[in-house]
Amino acid sequence: MNHATVRQRADMLEFLELCAARNIRFVSIWGDEIEKVGEDRALARMQALGLTAVGYNRIGPFDADGLARAERDLERAAQFGCDHVFLFTGGLAPGEKDLPRARRHAEEVIARLLELARGYGVKLALEPLHPMLVGDRTVITTLSQANDLCDRLGAGLGVVIDVHHVWWDPCLAAETARAGDAGRILGFHVNDWLVPTRDMLRDRGMMGDGVIDLAAMEALVRGAGYDGPVEVEIFSKDWAERDPAEVIDIAIERCHTILPTSRSVETTAT
Amino acid sequence: MNHATVRQRADMLEFLELCAARNIRFVSIWGDEIEKVGEDRALARMQALGLTAVGYNRIGPFDADGLARAERDLERAAQFGCDHVFLFTGGLAPGEKDLPRARRHAEEVIARLLELARGYGVKLALEPLHPMLVGDRTVITTLSQANDLCDRLGAGLGVVIDVHHVWWDPCLAAETARAGDAGRILGFHVNDWLVPTRDMLRDRGMMGDGVIDLAAMEALVRGAGYDGPVEVEIFSKDWAERDPAEVIDIAIERCHTILPTSRSVETTAT
Repeated sequence: MNHATVRQRADMLEFLELCAARNIRFVSIWGDEIEKVGEDRALARMQALGLTAVGYNRIGPFDADGLARAERDLERAAQFGCDHVFLFTGGLAPGEKDLPRARRHAEEVIARLLELARGYGVKLALEPLHPMLVGDRTVITTLSQANDLCDRLGAGLGVVIDVHHVWWDPCLAAETARAGDAGRILGFHVNDWLVPTRDMLRDRGMMGDGVIDLAAMEALVRGAGYDGPVEVEIFSKDWAERDPAEVIDIAIERCHTILPTSRSVETTAT
Repeated sequence: MNHATVRQRADMLEFLELCAARNIRFVSIWGDEIEKVGEDRALARMQALGLTAVGYNRIGPFDADGLARAERDLERAAQFGCDHVFLFTGGLAPGEKDLPRARRHAEEVIARLLELARGYGVKLALEPLHPMLVGDRTVITTLSQANDLCDRLGAGLGVVIDVHHVWWDPCLAAETARAGDAGRILGFHVNDWLVPTRDMLRDRGMMGDGVIDLAAMEALVRGAGYDGPVEVEIFSKDWAERDPAEVIDIAIERCHTILPTSRSVETTAT
């Protein structure tokens, strides 16, 4: 479970308790949420509850402020035992229109961050975001582009596949297999694409409420050799306002119904 | 100039007058707008004003209703002397989640339409639409996919490149060159991507108001051998409400400023 799904109403300590009570064992966490409750308390609670942190959110955007915090984030991610740290490149800088140049710049930054990350023993995760977010959120938009980057930059860099961002891609099957063959699929995020989608950032759906063939998507990722947890990450104004326990319960139920091969959502009660 | 840019306030006859008065020589037209003013009047006015129709909008969505009108649209497009007819596949059918299957189905429909279109001497245009529109508007989302389809289906099928739909694509340069090498670029549509984009269908920007490097995009398309007109197509609530003459004047001015190699927007006054 990714904390972003319920962070509006549950701080990190509450989130960890809610997950542990439902026998969710893997969580993805946020640096700013750790700071809100205090690093020591957050880490102690996570360990006491026997939870494992998978993804750490995040390094970026790649401007001066975002990069100034990068080393601290890597150190903290290592301290929390995270498998990978998400890279969030940001979109075009103000006034910038040269997208190929922005992409080359992002690659240079990632190469430098990778050197640092190797020192901390933490992997870096490229999560291609939906092409509608290129203007203001990312310059990495397809799994193909992320795979190319990983090929060029080498060990320690992998990809996270979020259904919302890649479900439309005609190259999805081939590029998922390519990522799997390279052993670089670090995560698999689920949610859904609503029709209509009213907001580009905060109108994702709960699994099953939209048009994505989630079972087929999981089959692709599992077929490519990924055997890690399924991560529920729903950025949604609607779901953010609901009771966090209810949201997590529904998410678990949907995963069980829709993703029969999921291994991440294991509950004692069902 | 594409009539959609000003259709909310100018019917087809007014639109044609506005274009001719500004020495715009090429227009793209809509079947439903022809019907509103009458086919005979529309055609007579177009001919009297010496205007040439480039694109005809459109065949689709690919449901029973949309396809029932296809032959009539092809016949009319030929009558109006249009170079090409746009194919608008539509998105996933209600309840449908199998996107690869929907794509195979669309390809079968296009193959049948192509047979018909050849008989009328009209080309069919695949315009890959933005990936954010896969759920409800199209299953053809990248220039690469459109090129693959053209390769498979053969003569009479080409692509239209609209900056709004493809500007984000890391494969854009390669796929534009590929389309150019095959002699299949039928049109080049300009507008802009606004940050933020508040609506997926009707919030496109006027050229220069957004983040797309339009000069670079035109250089790509011209470099690939396309020597046809630049088409202004702006689906926008804001621009639709403004005075059509003003909108066209601004569009011409922006094309002159931003796209120095444009040949389509030729005015006597500037």
